[in-house]
Amino acid sequence: MKRVVIVGGGFAGLAAARRLAGEPVEVWVVDQHNFHTFQPLLYQVATAGLDPADVAYPIRTILRRTRNARFVHGRVSRCDLSRRTILLTDGRELSYDYLVVASGASAATFGVPGVIDHALFLYTLDDARWVRNQVLTVLEHSDAATSDETTAPVIVVVGGGPTGVEMAGALSELIDIAIRHDRLRLDPARTRIVVLDAQNRLLANFSPVASEYAERILRARGVEVRLGCGVEEVSAAGVRLTGNELIRASVVIWAAGVTVEGTIAATLESQRAPGGRIVVDTDLSLVNHPEVFVAGDAAAARGPAPKAHGEDLVESSDTQHLLPQIAQVAIQSGDHAARQIVRRLEGRSTTSFTYHDKGVMATIGHRSAVAQLPGGTVVDGTVGWVAWLVLHLIYLIGFRNRVVVLINWAWHYFRWPSGPRLIIGDVPHSPAGPRSRHVTCSECGS
Amino acid sequence: MKRVVIVGGGFAGLAAARRLAGEPVEVWVVDQHNFHTFQPLLYQVATAGLDPADVAYPIRTILRRTRNARFVHGRVSRCDLSRRTILLTDGRELSYDYLVVASGASAATFGVPGVIDHALFLYTLDDARWVRNQVLTVLEHSDAATSDETTAPVIVVVGGGPTGVEMAGALSELIDIAIRHDRLRLDPARTRIVVLDAQNRLLANFSPVASEYAERILRARGVEVRLGCGVEEVSAAGVRLTGNELIRASVVIWAAGVTVEGTIAATLESQRAPGGRIVVDTDLSLVNHPEVFVAGDAAAARGPAPKAHGEDLVESSDTQHLLPQIAQVAIQSGDHAARQIVRRLEGRSTTSFTYHDKGVMATIGHRSAVAQLPGGTVVDGTVGWVAWLVLHLIYLIGFRNRVVVLINWAWHYFRWPSGPRLIIGDVPHSPAGPRSRHVTCSECGS
Repeated sequence: MKRVVIVGGGFAGLAAARRLAGEPVEVWVVDQHNFHTFQPLLYQVATAGLDPADVAYPIRTILRRTRNARFVHGRVSRCDLSRRTILLTDGRELSYDYLVVASGASAATFGVPGVIDHALFLYTLDDARWVRNQVLTVLEHSDAATSDETTAPVIVVVGGGPTGVEMAGALSELIDIAIRHDRLRLDPARTRIVVLDAQNRLLANFSPVASEYAERILRARGVEVRLGCGVEEVSAAGVRLTGNELIRASVVIWAAGVTVEGTIAATLESQRAPGGRIVVDTDLSLVNHPEVFVAGDAAAARGPAPKAHGEDLVESSDTQHLLPQIAQVAIQSGDHAARQIVRRLEGRSTTSFTYHDKGVMATIGHRSAVAQLPGGTVVDGTVGWVAWLVLHLIYLIGFRNRVVVLINWAWHYFRWPSGPRLIIGDVPHSPAGPRSRHVTCSECGS
Repeated sequence: MKRVVIVGGGFAGLAAARRLAGEPVEVWVVDQHNFHTFQPLLYQVATAGLDPADVAYPIRTILRRTRNARFVHGRVSRCDLSRRTILLTDGRELSYDYLVVASGASAATFGVPGVIDHALFLYTLDDARWVRNQVLTVLEHSDAATSDETTAPVIVVVGGGPTGVEMAGALSELIDIAIRHDRLRLDPARTRIVVLDAQNRLLANFSPVASEYAERILRARGVEVRLGCGVEEVSAAGVRLTGNELIRASVVIWAAGVTVEGTIAATLESQRAPGGRIVVDTDLSLVNHPEVFVAGDAAAARGPAPKAHGEDLVESSDTQHLLPQIAQVAIQSGDHAARQIVRRLEGRSTTSFTYHDKGVMATIGHRSAVAQLPGGTVVDGTVGWVAWLVLHLIYLIGFRNRVVVLINWAWHYFRWPSGPRLIIGDVPHSPAGPRSRHVTCSECGS
């Protein structure tokens, strides 16, 4: 029986595995984590609205009924296209007949100095846990109960895309709860949340109506929005902008974008599109390797410029645009890759990938969200928020998770302020608030 | 207004804080974690039956209605009895009029070489998370799907008290679920769980009837029980017993007991009882320091030898016995300490602490538990399990947690095998299964 190896258990990889259920192939899903992460809700884990387990689900559980699928827990070090083998960091090798590379992306620093050491990302579950621990620790240490000299917390979010906007909105709610319900003695006037973006509007991939709404709501909630603002450097002191202005920061959250550089996909010998994305044929196969498909954030999948995404997408040479790196594109491209493998097995030719736009949305906090439908229509306010809620609940994988998440949200919504504001894991107890996740070595001090 | 500082937000510390609600004092609760841990259920977190957040609850939320109480997030470095001040590691100082030391205990190695480096503890929430990650990682890497040479997992639990018994029972269920529902290709015959104890029966503090029941149930579930077995050394290879026998182990869980040595209480200048426990007057105050009380695991509280606990407790010089370090003693002693402070404030003399035995219980797995009532009567089987369940639900602090935990348990019970078997956090991907939680430094390799 032919073997399909899928690298990555994210939206793209699992969509591919599910499409291959019952087909005459054995499917091996490889991931360094034994769980799938529902990334669109990571910002809620980061702001203590949800628990890590609410947005993570064991891959083995997801694949339980996919009898021809197996899970391999391991980290891929390299794909050897000539030997049709993938190598794991622990020395294991897996050979394949077909390969689906759905290894995702990672946070992009754009070469800005200090980002790795002094900013926090928000791409993996561990990132989200770390952001939560840092933010809660900074709030605790800003509590004036035990210190006359208040060090007011300043949280800077770099990037005004959906992640940055959602993060800023949720942070403002977290601080509100911390003051009102947890009786943290923060000075609201000196407790700042700042969102920076180099472009001249938030949610640049949405229509201007949505951008304007997001900015208005964030400002109404006390978030400072700084647009057209380049970041020169991130340091222990804070964020230095172009023009040398320094914004002192207790926590810097880097939500400026992602890159495929440094991921497994980057070890493929192939051409690259902007963001390090792997250039693929229209059927999503790798150029000169019809047995290898790339899906999800790693792939430079293209489509017509969707009205819904405005005019700000990266231009491509063939008048088509690079599709955004979002869950819908990942799901559809993973599914497409699997269908092409089935076609190949059946001796048929492959078909081109066509993305069906289902719209985009971002929530800015309690009862405020903006949804942009495929036609370009913008729905905002409570209606947008309910739409966002329903959609995310439907897509959240696994019934159990859905119920628990619903309970958590219901509590949150009805102002039962007993969210999981837990600092679990080792966080140094420095009032300055360590920003880097690097653990200090007890031997060498580095 | 007089200030009461309570060191520790465990059962004893929170019982004291709650008792002081509405009294004419300001209460400051200091803890290095911003949450209370429901320790009796840690073994369920360690075996992926519950999530960390199910057994942790923010201290600020618990103290919400205790208006005269404040929470201070910080690690205590020392109590300065002469200056009536406690010092935090970040340099902050808190002065007090009354001090309640409820700082708990930590795992005792009994000087056995290799325990710190090669065994895992089960006393804090982070311990439990770490055990879970290690156990699940070892099971994943024992999966024969990608390896011909199966390294069968062997999990050794050192200590046959309630923690060891509950851990072993839950591990056998976890492995059962992993094989049947997660389709892990483990060889059941070579997958071993071993419980060791130096004494000649399990649950030595329970009556022999309970011990015999626990042993029978564990053996029926495939757990190997080795009694009268001293441990000489723990190493990367496994556990070496007295007599030089080596039990090869993938994971070693050290549940052999606790000590007050190395905790904050150990910085008090005071006499010590066995286990490093602080010698206290009958009213739980520190000898020569009537303004300082010690409660919970840290205190050498004494009481008549309870029938329920058999004859194996440590003998004391004054014909009374050291009370066991369990939640009920902690709650009652914390409450007693707070009541003595109120009496002092009212100019009254203090009273002696009397422990009201409410029985002890241990669950050995699905529908099997053993409860020993105050009179010494033993209830076991499903009745014992239901009793255990109800009691723990009642005591679990916080309504929200109770509901979510109930849902998790209900799922578990009705065999919806989608428990939180998530490996969250950084675990090295070595098939050997790293046992120590020490992170390898990228700079110096240590």
